[in-house]
Order: sequence, then C-alpha cells, then structure tokens
Amino acid sequence: MWAQHTLTLPARRRGFHLITREITGAVPELARTRTGLLHVFIQHTSASLTLNENASPDVRADFETYFNHAVPDGWAPFMHTLEGEDDMAAHIKASLLGPSLTLPVQQGRLALGTWQGVYLCEHRDHGGPRRLILTLNGEAL
Amino acid sequence: MWAQHTLTLPARRRGFHLITREITGAVPELARTRTGLLHVFIQHTSASLTLNENASPDVRADFETYFNHAVPDGWAPFMHTLEGEDDMAAHIKASLLGPSLTLPVQQGRLALGTWQGVYLCEHRDHGGPRRLILTLNGEAL
Amino acid sequence: MWAQHTLTLPARRRGFHLITREITGAVPELARTRTGLLHVFIQHTSASLTLNENASPDVRADFETYFNHAVPDGWAPFMHTLEGEDDMAAHIKASLLGPSLTLPVQQGRLALGTWQGVYLCEHRDHGGPRRLILTLNGEAL
Repeated sequence: MWAQHTLTLPARRRGFHLITREITGAVPELARTRTGLLHVFIQHTSASLTLNENASPDVRADFETYFNHAVPDGWAPFMHTLEGEDDMAAHIKASLLGPSLTLPVQQGRLALGTWQGVYLCEHRDHGGPRRLILTLNGEAL
Repeated sequence: MWAQHTLTLPARRRGFHLITREITGAVPELARTRTGLLHVFIQHTSASLTLNENASPDVRADFETYFNHAVPDGWAPFMHTLEGEDDMAAHIKASLLGPSLTLPVQQGRLALGTWQGVYLCEHRDHGGPRRLILTLNGEAL
Repeated sequence: MWAQHTLTLPARRRGFHLITREITGAVPELARTRTGLLHVFIQHTSASLTLNENASPDVRADFETYFNHAVPDGWAPFMHTLEGEDDMAAHIKASLLGPSLTLPVQQGRLALGTWQGVYLCEHRDHGGPRRLILTLNGEAL
C-alpha cells in the first residue's frame, strides 16, 4: 500500500521546531498500516529535518546555538553571498542535517523512541512556508 | 514482503562500534530477498548510526577524537546541562550522524561496498543498551 | 514494483558535483512509476551524497571550502594516516553528509523542489570511479 501527501508548514522563525504531530496528522493511512515505513522529505535547500529530543525546549535552543557557531552566517570565505548573510550557511546546515527522515511504522503508529520527535530545522531568517512530501509504504492492518 | 524485528544491542562503551553482523543476523528474511531495502533505525537521541570503513580500528578511534573536538562535552553556551556534561553534545552528534541507515539488498545479501560496515555511534559515557528497529521490504528470491 | 541498477560514475576531481541527470537517466522505470521512492546509495566510505542547490556553482565551491575547514586534511590527532593526508578527513566528511539519499517519486518523476539537485561529494584527491546502487520501489502508472 502506497500513500503520498503534500504538507505545507506555515512559516516559522529561524530555529528548531517540533513537528511530529503535524506529520502524523497529515497521513491518515498510518493508522491502517501494520508494518511499513514513512518517508518525510523537505523540498528545500535551506531548511532540513532531524530527529531528536522531544521534551526540553532548551535542547532545541542549544541546537540553534551550536549550528550558528559551527557554520557562521556571512563566513568570510563564502562566495555565494547574493542572497544574504544567512543563505550559504543555511545550505551547509541543511546538508549536515539532511533533507529527509525514514521512520518505521508498527501497528498503525510511528515506532519512535520515547524521547524522539521530528524537528523542522529552519536555517533562514525569513524562510517562509516549507513544503514536505510524505510517502507511506506498508502492508495494511 | 515485509519483515520487522527489534534488536537490542548490549551496552557498549562511548565510541564507534562495528555492528554489521549483529544486524544481518537479526533479519533471517534477508537471505530470501532478491531485491529490496533494509532500514535500520535507532530509537534514541544520544546514539546514532553511520556507515564507514570496516577494517581499521584506528578509523573508529579517529571518529571519536574528531567528534569530541567538533562538539565538546560541557560546551559553555549549552543550556541543557541537567543530564550531564556529555548529554547535550551527544544529542548534537546524534543529529549530525543520523538515526537511521537504508541499505540496498541484492540476491539475499546487503549490497555494501567492500569496505563499508555499520557503526553504532555511542555518544554517552553510560548509554546503556540501545534498541534498533530493523525493517526489511523487498521481493522474494 | 522493484528495480535495481548499478551506476558507475567516472572519476571526478575532489569537490561537489551535480549528478541528478546521471541518476534519473540510469533508472528507466522511473517514468512508469506513479508513487514510490528512489534510493540512491554510494558503495564507498570516502565519498558521499547530498541534496542541495542546483543552480550556482559558487554554492558547490563553498561546500568544498567549508568542509575542508571543518575537517582538515592531515589533522594532527588522526591516527589513521597510512592512506594519505586526505583519507581520514574523507571518511569523516562521508559520514557527516551520508552514503545515501531517498527521494520521493510522483507521476513518473522525482518530486524534488525547484532548487534541489543531487551532489556527488568526492572527498579524495584521486578517488577514482564511484559505484552507486539505485533501488526503485513503487506502484506503476
């Protein structure tokens, strides 16, 4: 069984945001899947997806602090600077974290660990809405 | 054909560990799969999975040295410090390396390159046992 | 429907290279797939794959500059140095960026964003040809 949905996330401020519920809410077929995989894909190159701690907002703030340090806005050697100081750094962060997640499905639910949640990683100051393609493949309950 | 297994890895010391054989040994249906994909997923946010050189233990030691340098334990700007000096650094390393691998299956075997092996990346000093969900999808031999 | 192909890319110089067309050209079944996923896998540990901006060559040059800075060739603490100054750095870059991409397929085409393209990330000075395994799974049009 295959299902595919487009999910447009509203614009969020730069940083790391929990979006697990938005994703599961956009795939009604999940509840009818015994065993399968859900692929979550972002169609952008300056925002990304990761899986991390779903409880403490401090963790998400620390992610923002760390990645801004590791890949500084307006780093002097960058040549691609036309689209703003945050643009080239955003591209690199997007590749460090990655454009997709593949998540196991078990008995109608994502088989995530207790503390795992999906983060939207918004690397731009004004990234705007972000479009995801959600692809579910599995066998029916 | 779908198959899904839980594999609990015993606690390992902090560092990078080859676990290819433990994974293939936990999926008996692999041997009967002509073409497919094996998804390996870790249900934790302070350990991760990667694919790298399967021969030299020095490579795995260098991974540990590099990542401890790139994401220092107890980095001063971190706010999430309640769970120990190694905790927040572990979360970031886990997202840099990622929580899953998808591996091609060909004629009953993983189609890895000669030098590729699966690493469990244990980012905590005392991480304990780690739980993996292994999901195989493919067509039978 | 499953299809699997091997694609051997000719040797390229160290750096980041757009290979989207080589990939889609190697999977004729893509055009007959309504909904599915294409898995692109590199069988090496010193080259990798990522998805990023497909227009400006400056972006790809900035990737090379950034990653050479973040993971320096011949970094003093490395122990695995027998295969050259670029080798151990290449292994780490390969794990930071990852060995595979999973891309959504929609109505016979990859459902990439307007600005997304597949990069081959060649981390070695003389990496030679690189072998990819392309695995398509989906339902037929």
